[in-house]
Amino acid sequence: MSDSKPVLAILGGTGDLGTGLARRWAEAGYRVIIGSRTQDKAEAAVADLQQVMADRGIAQVTVEAMGNLAAAEAADIVAMTVPFAHHSSTLELVKPALKGKILIDVTVPLVPPKVARVQLPEAGSAGQIAQNLLGEDTQVVSAFQNVAAHHLQEGKGLDCDVLVCGDKKDARAKVIELVEAAGMRGFHAGSIANAAAVEAMTSVLIFVNKQYQCHAGIKLTGLAE
Amino acid sequence: MSDSKPVLAILGGTGDLGTGLARRWAEAGYRVIIGSRTQDKAEAAVADLQQVMADRGIAQVTVEAMGNLAAAEAADIVAMTVPFAHHSSTLELVKPALKGKILIDVTVPLVPPKVARVQLPEAGSAGQIAQNLLGEDTQVVSAFQNVAAHHLQEGKGLDCDVLVCGDKKDARAKVIELVEAAGMRGFHAGSIANAAAVEAMTSVLIFVNKQYQCHAGIKLTGLAE
Repeated sequence: MSDSKPVLAILGGTGDLGTGLARRWAEAGYRVIIGSRTQDKAEAAVADLQQVMADRGIAQVTVEAMGNLAAAEAADIVAMTVPFAHHSSTLELVKPALKGKILIDVTVPLVPPKVARVQLPEAGSAGQIAQNLLGEDTQVVSAFQNVAAHHLQEGKGLDCDVLVCGDKKDARAKVIELVEAAGMRGFHAGSIANAAAVEAMTSVLIFVNKQYQCHAGIKLTGLAE
Repeated sequence: MSDSKPVLAILGGTGDLGTGLARRWAEAGYRVIIGSRTQDKAEAAVADLQQVMADRGIAQVTVEAMGNLAAAEAADIVAMTVPFAHHSSTLELVKPALKGKILIDVTVPLVPPKVARVQLPEAGSAGQIAQNLLGEDTQVVSAFQNVAAHHLQEGKGLDCDVLVCGDKKDARAKVIELVEAAGMRGFHAGSIANAAAVEAMTSVLIFVNKQYQCHAGIKLTGLAE
């Protein structure tokens, strides 16, 4: 992958967020694999994605389907968009395949039914849990938790920023490239401990969405001085 | 205070954030009291504020100075901008004076020296600690934690939003009025548990400020649909 683009996998990538990222990255020229617990579910999601794109008149792209472990093995950079309840078990499954790779953790530790209430795990964040579980052989970078899947599914640009947290600056920089490839601005937002802020903000945005009937995101201001 | 504006106090209001809020609220027609640990310190801060305004050609306003307890007693709505190390002790001091009132908690639980790293307290947030300590007789509403004091000190409008958390909607609505009086947009952001997200975001913004040499804030997007 030195000169060419890295191969990307999205584990648990069958939902709106996962397929939205898959389409945007594929359109940007990346080879993208959607992973799911079974090959069948991944294939169904890819078929849905093709149909949605055809219905909306968006240029079709090729996205592959695999089981989560095969997807993690085949990819250079692995994103994960599973529900928090499956976060640790999915990580245990794919851990051997993540050695030497970047894991982009999109997980938000929501505790149903009160998903509009911040209820962070004891370790502080899903991103921190992932880094603790995977150890130093894998760079965990958290990102995309505040992006409304509703907007990601649209063909056009996105009016929200992505705060990128992780312990290594190089790994964050590679994820910021992928944020930009998906049509957003990405920013270095500190160590993986700071994922707590971004993950918690998702519950605030869910509350705002209910209160103001919208699909809210956040944007940084005050940058140019 | 039925028809007229509430009297406002800002405990620990001698810093850039406190005096910035004091000036903006006073300019909007509120009676404002800056509180500090001693009357002398509060008077010195008010004198500084008058000097800064004169230097910048900003219309002078009248702001009063008192000790923290006297300020809390004299006000209808009490804001607090103390360092986290003095958060609980200040609350214990003024607790009797806060009965039946709204406390606007601006405190961010930073743990020096790593202030750009999210390190939330066990209770989740300073706002939650305050609500637990004060009990049901006082409505704690957290706000203003993500506003750069640098920008608040300027005379002009502010390009950042304020996320307002608190368990009672009425209390949040009164604080949103004060956010607007200070020149910003305020939004209902959920229960006091959600203060964790907003307080944690301050450490992210401190990191962003260092990384990008700026005074960053956040703004909600995707509201109008």
